[in-house]
Amino acid sequence: MIKACVVGATGYTGVELVRLLSRHPEVVIVGITSNNYAGREYDDLYPSLKGYFSMKCDELNVKELIKKSDVIFTALPSGHALEFAGEIISSGKKLIDLGADFRFDDPLVYEKWYGKPFKLHEGVRRVYGLPEIYRKKIKNANVIGNPGCYPTSAILALAPCLKYGLILTEDIIIDSKSGVSGAGHSLTLGNLYAECNESTKAYGVANHRHTPEIEQELGKICGKEIKVTFTPHLVPMTRGILSTIYCNLKEDISVKEVREAYVDFYKGEFFVKLLEEGRFPRTKDTYGSNHCHIGLAYDEHTGKLIIISAIDNLMKGASGQAVQNMNILFDFPEYMGLDFPAIYP
Amino acid sequence: MIKACVVGATGYTGVELVRLLSRHPEVVIVGITSNNYAGREYDDLYPSLKGYFSMKCDELNVKELIKKSDVIFTALPSGHALEFAGEIISSGKKLIDLGADFRFDDPLVYEKWYGKPFKLHEGVRRVYGLPEIYRKKIKNANVIGNPGCYPTSAILALAPCLKYGLILTEDIIIDSKSGVSGAGHSLTLGNLYAECNESTKAYGVANHRHTPEIEQELGKICGKEIKVTFTPHLVPMTRGILSTIYCNLKEDISVKEVREAYVDFYKGEFFVKLLEEGRFPRTKDTYGSNHCHIGLAYDEHTGKLIIISAIDNLMKGASGQAVQNMNILFDFPEYMGLDFPAIYP
Amino acid sequence: MIKACVVGATGYTGVELVRLLSRHPEVVIVGITSNNYAGREYDDLYPSLKGYFSMKCDELNVKELIKKSDVIFTALPSGHALEFAGEIISSGKKLIDLGADFRFDDPLVYEKWYGKPFKLHEGVRRVYGLPEIYRKKIKNANVIGNPGCYPTSAILALAPCLKYGLILTEDIIIDSKSGVSGAGHSLTLGNLYAECNESTKAYGVANHRHTPEIEQELGKICGKEIKVTFTPHLVPMTRGILSTIYCNLKEDISVKEVREAYVDFYKGEFFVKLLEEGRFPRTKDTYGSNHCHIGLAYDEHTGKLIIISAIDNLMKGASGQAVQNMNILFDFPEYMGLDFPAIYP
Amino acid sequence: MIKACVVGATGYTGVELVRLLSRHPEVVIVGITSNNYAGREYDDLYPSLKGYFSMKCDELNVKELIKKSDVIFTALPSGHALEFAGEIISSGKKLIDLGADFRFDDPLVYEKWYGKPFKLHEGVRRVYGLPEIYRKKIKNANVIGNPGCYPTSAILALAPCLKYGLILTEDIIIDSKSGVSGAGHSLTLGNLYAECNESTKAYGVANHRHTPEIEQELGKICGKEIKVTFTPHLVPMTRGILSTIYCNLKEDISVKEVREAYVDFYKGEFFVKLLEEGRFPRTKDTYGSNHCHIGLAYDEHTGKLIIISAIDNLMKGASGQAVQNMNILFDFPEYMGLDFPAIYP
Repeated sequence: MIKACVVGATGYTGVELVRLLSRHPEVVIVGITSNNYAGREYDDLYPSLKGYFSMKCDELNVKELIKKSDVIFTALPSGHALEFAGEIISSGKKLIDLGADFRFDDPLVYEKWYGKPFKLHEGVRRVYGLPEIYRKKIKNANVIGNPGCYPTSAILALAPCLKYGLILTEDIIIDSKSGVSGAGHSLTLGNLYAECNESTKAYGVANHRHTPEIEQELGKICGKEIKVTFTPHLVPMTRGILSTIYCNLKEDISVKEVREAYVDFYKGEFFVKLLEEGRFPRTKDTYGSNHCHIGLAYDEHTGKLIIISAIDNLMKGASGQAVQNMNILFDFPEYMGLDFPAIYP
Repeated sequence: MIKACVVGATGYTGVELVRLLSRHPEVVIVGITSNNYAGREYDDLYPSLKGYFSMKCDELNVKELIKKSDVIFTALPSGHALEFAGEIISSGKKLIDLGADFRFDDPLVYEKWYGKPFKLHEGVRRVYGLPEIYRKKIKNANVIGNPGCYPTSAILALAPCLKYGLILTEDIIIDSKSGVSGAGHSLTLGNLYAECNESTKAYGVANHRHTPEIEQELGKICGKEIKVTFTPHLVPMTRGILSTIYCNLKEDISVKEVREAYVDFYKGEFFVKLLEEGRFPRTKDTYGSNHCHIGLAYDEHTGKLIIISAIDNLMKGASGQAVQNMNILFDFPEYMGLDFPAIYP
Repeated sequence: MIKACVVGATGYTGVELVRLLSRHPEVVIVGITSNNYAGREYDDLYPSLKGYFSMKCDELNVKELIKKSDVIFTALPSGHALEFAGEIISSGKKLIDLGADFRFDDPLVYEKWYGKPFKLHEGVRRVYGLPEIYRKKIKNANVIGNPGCYPTSAILALAPCLKYGLILTEDIIIDSKSGVSGAGHSLTLGNLYAECNESTKAYGVANHRHTPEIEQELGKICGKEIKVTFTPHLVPMTRGILSTIYCNLKEDISVKEVREAYVDFYKGEFFVKLLEEGRFPRTKDTYGSNHCHIGLAYDEHTGKLIIISAIDNLMKGASGQAVQNMNILFDFPEYMGLDFPAIYP
Repeated sequence: MIKACVVGATGYTGVELVRLLSRHPEVVIVGITSNNYAGREYDDLYPSLKGYFSMKCDELNVKELIKKSDVIFTALPSGHALEFAGEIISSGKKLIDLGADFRFDDPLVYEKWYGKPFKLHEGVRRVYGLPEIYRKKIKNANVIGNPGCYPTSAILALAPCLKYGLILTEDIIIDSKSGVSGAGHSLTLGNLYAECNESTKAYGVANHRHTPEIEQELGKICGKEIKVTFTPHLVPMTRGILSTIYCNLKEDISVKEVREAYVDFYKGEFFVKLLEEGRFPRTKDTYGSNHCHIGLAYDEHTGKLIIISAIDNLMKGASGQAVQNMNILFDFPEYMGLDFPAIYP
């Protein structure tokens, strides 16, 4: 049994983490903190957890958290986790950050897109926490930069193609459709029911900050700098991301080879499922689960390869993946506490 | 480990059963049947189950099913389970029926509302499968009439009041709001997205066949014949039933006594949660779980007691409750395979 | 042509007013004010109106508004309209208030439920603006207290029964289901998409402030004090209120007489439609329109009369009704600018 | 006043036509036909129209319809309208077909994608009914092939760019998101509420039959054969199409020039609205209206021009456009009966 605490436990990724950790056979939650709800009972705030988890929200006190935990999850606005990291690491504990603070290799990219100074503390062994790509490095890290939701859906969809050099690295287009919970618990007009319901719109067009994250990781997979056009959309659902990706198959590559590459790349991966020819993923089939479904099509008349992936943005796109990373860090079976299918219908 | 099969596995209650049984630590699914999809791979029909359950749908062959199973779940139109029951029971196996065939004490009531002749085969020890009320009888039964979704939400809400004689038995009004999955997988105009979305309506007004089921059970709890006014509504959501119940508190009873009665009645019940004073349930907080949340209010200026309950119609209202019944029948811990909270948000 | 202005034009009832008034053949909008968006172009805030209405939002300046308008619509928090009324009336202009300030006959009721002191300025001829009941008085009023959304749905449903003395005045239960836009444009957690979607809940149980408004009006219709049990619910849709009302038919009254009473009472009313026997209203069939649909059922086995009404909460429940009142005040045909059916599907 | 009839009046495009025509100041509906509902009262089937339109559905009798109408709208499965056309035209009446029968210049394309033989009757002067492109030809036509919903959204978005030669004609990608009503009133599993709600998916990937329609029209605009990659998606809403289009700006073209081209191309067009820089359309802002909103962005780091358009699939994408075409055919103001904004929120 390990001891975990969740900093920023009352946002949507926080409450999803608590749901997962409270049921994890090898974890005890020893602390939860909340800026807005300190002093409140957690299952009073989130009655869905009645009978599963009960604890008062604390104000943040990093030293105390470090003392009592083996691993600290942070679900905070940019910059905060970066601050705590040194103290956590120097005391030998692990940090899994669900924000963007530890996702970037190049400090300048982080500073440009997130507007905060970046400085890694000594002793930090940081890794981009996408297990299907970096499993080994995750094992040896002490700080996990848990991937963004859109990047997870895009990188898992494109990795085999780029790894095996099946597509051109130019002109990759990622058109993503997300449920509203990705925008979090925050009180903005755009998150109101009456604004989102019966509406679809694009946002962050040509300048969403998940773009550099996607580009960094795709670039590392194919070994060269890469640029993508990424457009996120809001659709009227609570959870789920569907990414439809358009790219150019190399001339001498057949669709059959593409399919074989995906089979090979994801062989043995519990959380990634390649759908049969002619079948395409629905976000509903990943709702509440840590799975990623991928479908492939080739448009013969334009030469485009179309890759479609579906995830639950709060699970594989955030808290589920964070728990998967924790499992790797602590040598638990990777699927532990995560081996359940989507809720359907 | 016991062996289970699901007859009628491709409706919404069927697929929910398969989701639960496929993850149950003491169950192996040995057979699934489907009228419409015989010969089809189950996880091809329901890709949410990829990696969890894979089996071909069979046509229904009762003898074979009996041979290979310890328990048979039926999720079929009225009349079919009644037919098989004799054969199943005489071979010493158990039957859990999610339809209405075994819910009624009085054959004439069944025949009136379901239009089928009713005849119980010899050896059948039937029980109305609401564990919080009939736990002991369930243990000794061999056929379970799994309750309807609306009745579950209404009976759990009213049982303490009626058991302890706190309310008048006249003028009970049950106004229920249900998600659309309760109407099942069936291709009717009223189930289309474009018809249900952005719409609320009542249906089956003054003649829904869950009325006699509710009345039978409430009557048994309070020891006298009882009549209720029950109006079901469709609201635009997939899962969930909220029942708002209006009744008259007896003159000498205080609200405090009512609350204490509920605490007492549901003491030790894992699946029923009484909310604090001033808090009322949301269906969202039971989504995908086997829990029932109950809230209480007293309208001083009219003397009405208002009881509100929320369940997931496919879980505590159907398949979750069926598994709970199975756990009791086979002496497993009652919460086994069902001890997970709702998906929120 | 008359000149109108809208005070508080950027909430949901405000924008619905602007949509209606901008298309009204006898109205010019001469001013719109907004607390939060003063200085902003209206069709930049609400792009749905591009091509129909363009004007900058002003800060509120009552004197100026009075100078340039014939009628002032106020869609403001409680207490504000009450303040302006004197000035507006003494200058001979008309005031239509979409808030609660002018709905109550008894100042103490207003003060108790809205927490503001109540004082009517001299010269104010106030009326409760429900045209189907008070058409004549509206013609002669100078201040309209436009009814609340729930009260509109409840009073229209119950008026014929109470007017003609067909039901007992005790034990009336009003169970209402509302879309989320009724809660307005306000940034509260409960209005977030991720909180409302896939959820139904009751709120304001036993203490919603539309209760005294309903009771006042029903009482006036039947000529005696009346008490009702009213429970509002939020269902996951943007617009629409469905009210399901339970009451006791007097012993000597037949259902046929009830139906005839409704036909008679609403004879010639363009906005109220009585549905055929066995048909019940859907909110969808009133979406975006100023109509109220009413259905009737009698539960023989309990003796309850069940009346179900559907309206669009922003139209007949707020802004549509306000325009209907304006039409009466200014001798336009009552349906002018409002004679369009619901958007279906 | 002209006389119109609607053949296939009970599908979603049919009922939308009836809603529009019943309110059109220059139209009388003289006949409606329905395969499934002949003999039924229309406002009994569609209670939203109570008070606006009342007529019995007839079985189809072409001769009679021709006799009594000036214009016939057909909303039927492929092949039927083609059959009637000769008879209608030779009697001097007009035909507006909402299906695909008259959309294609090349009979082989129609036959390939719709599987029906194509033969134009003598005297037919057919035109692709997109008024913003073919206004003059529409005036002189006697048969209108009303455009598909996706093609309308794509062609309006791309026309200025292609007309003025601002983009490369290769590598155009059209990613469209549609509400469910586009799939019509048909009873298929995929149209059920429980299947669509909380789910987004692609369908018809790389082989949707709106692809050749889009390619034909874009090709004619730019004067050369053109191929596009088109992927439609279903999102959980009733109405609306958002098309996100990716293309390559020619090297010497600035974004400013692109914007000016759109301003110029759509100058004086009532139904097409270009949004300001940095603003992007929401389907909600076109809900129930005949408008198309267009937004533009340039992704500097990849050189892609991103064009986003929103329409209501049943209005500008079907029935609204059909009425617009009728207005042109009969010399009514083009906006007659269509000049109302979207319902918001």
